[in-house]
Amino acid sequence: KKSPVNTSAKKKMIFGDRGMTLEEEINESNKYYRSHDIAVIYKKPTPIQIVKVDYPKRSRAVIKEAYFAQASTTDYNGIYNGYYIDFEAKETTHKNTFPLKNFHQHQIDHLRACQKQGGICFVIIKYVSLKRYFIMPVDNLFEYWNGQRNNGPKSIQLKQIIDCSVEVSPDYNPTLPYIKAVQSLIESGREKK
Amino acid sequence: KKSPVNTSAKKKMIFGDRGMTLEEEINESNKYYRSHDIAVIYKKPTPIQIVKVDYPKRSRAVIKEAYFAQASTTDYNGIYNGYYIDFEAKETTHKNTFPLKNFHQHQIDHLRACQKQGGICFVIIKYVSLKRYFIMPVDNLFEYWNGQRNNGPKSIQLKQIIDCSVEVSPDYNPTLPYIKAVQSLIESGREKK
Ligand SMILES: [Mg+2]
Ligand SMILES: [Mg+2]
Repeated sequence: KKSPVNTSAKKKMIFGDRGMTLEEEINESNKYYRSHDIAVIYKKPTPIQIVKVDYPKRSRAVIKEAYFAQASTTDYNGIYNGYYIDFEAKETTHKNTFPLKNFHQHQIDHLRACQKQGGICFVIIKYVSLKRYFIMPVDNLFEYWNGQRNNGPKSIQLKQIIDCSVEVSPDYNPTLPYIKAVQSLIESGREKK
Repeated sequence: KKSPVNTSAKKKMIFGDRGMTLEEEINESNKYYRSHDIAVIYKKPTPIQIVKVDYPKRSRAVIKEAYFAQASTTDYNGIYNGYYIDFEAKETTHKNTFPLKNFHQHQIDHLRACQKQGGICFVIIKYVSLKRYFIMPVDNLFEYWNGQRNNGPKSIQLKQIIDCSVEVSPDYNPTLPYIKAVQSLIESGREKK
């Protein structure tokens, strides 16, 4: 006689085992959201500084020398239900902290400018080894960022992230249902001071 | 005795003579809008398909083989006063028409999806030789696009563009004050059916 299969636990294992990066998980989710008319959100292409291009006859142009350039904005933007959405995605292998050096001043500045215009701005943080995902509103990020620049802690504690964020569990379709968390940020008004 | 200088006419000539592309004019305007907290709008980087990268010791990574990839979206997006903004910029050397083959199906699909989510979507058309700029709501574009696919005209007439668009005159700072036209689209509700 077979023992009953715990499909929920089985599912969790399968999801957890796919070994996708956070970026892949978000890109897959965005594909789902677009095809279901839920949101139109894309990863911005990495800016490339092109130095040399060959134009061979009868075939397409080949970039022969180019460099990765510094992005001026964040990873993702788009629209959800009339709201402008803008966020940065970060993964960490740390277990109890999140080092603020993962952020760059231009990302903070961009998120601040978008929030000022009325956008819904946040960070998605993935703890790779814990397999936990958090949607942290930028107001909390700004607080820790400013603290650090005034000789405060250089890292955010996991406990602090849990306190101020909405946690998202990975799922099947979409892979990372983060829009649910965004909706709850909007409803609670937590995306704005 | 010197004759009085018509500064307005002089200015016009200078602006008209700078020989910037439409993309340069919009990028400069966006810089102005960002620095004055009016809007946060960027050109999306061209997507590049990277094939080969060298990582030389003690110096930065060099892309040695890469190709221009097809963009899935439009040229520009961002936020203005709480509104998600999405648009495509096109210049033409034609004088009386605008060929619809300047658009690609994926751009039309993307604009449609963004409008469905409540975004403000439009096209900026520059008639290079006429030095005239038009902000055309996407509803009008969709109409001509669909018409063309049903054996209608393959081009939009300048007269039709004048009728359905808001015209923008180039200026000094910002170079192309298109947000003024966007505001008037929003106020007249012309960005939506
Ligand atoms: Mg990132
Ligand atoms: Mg274009």
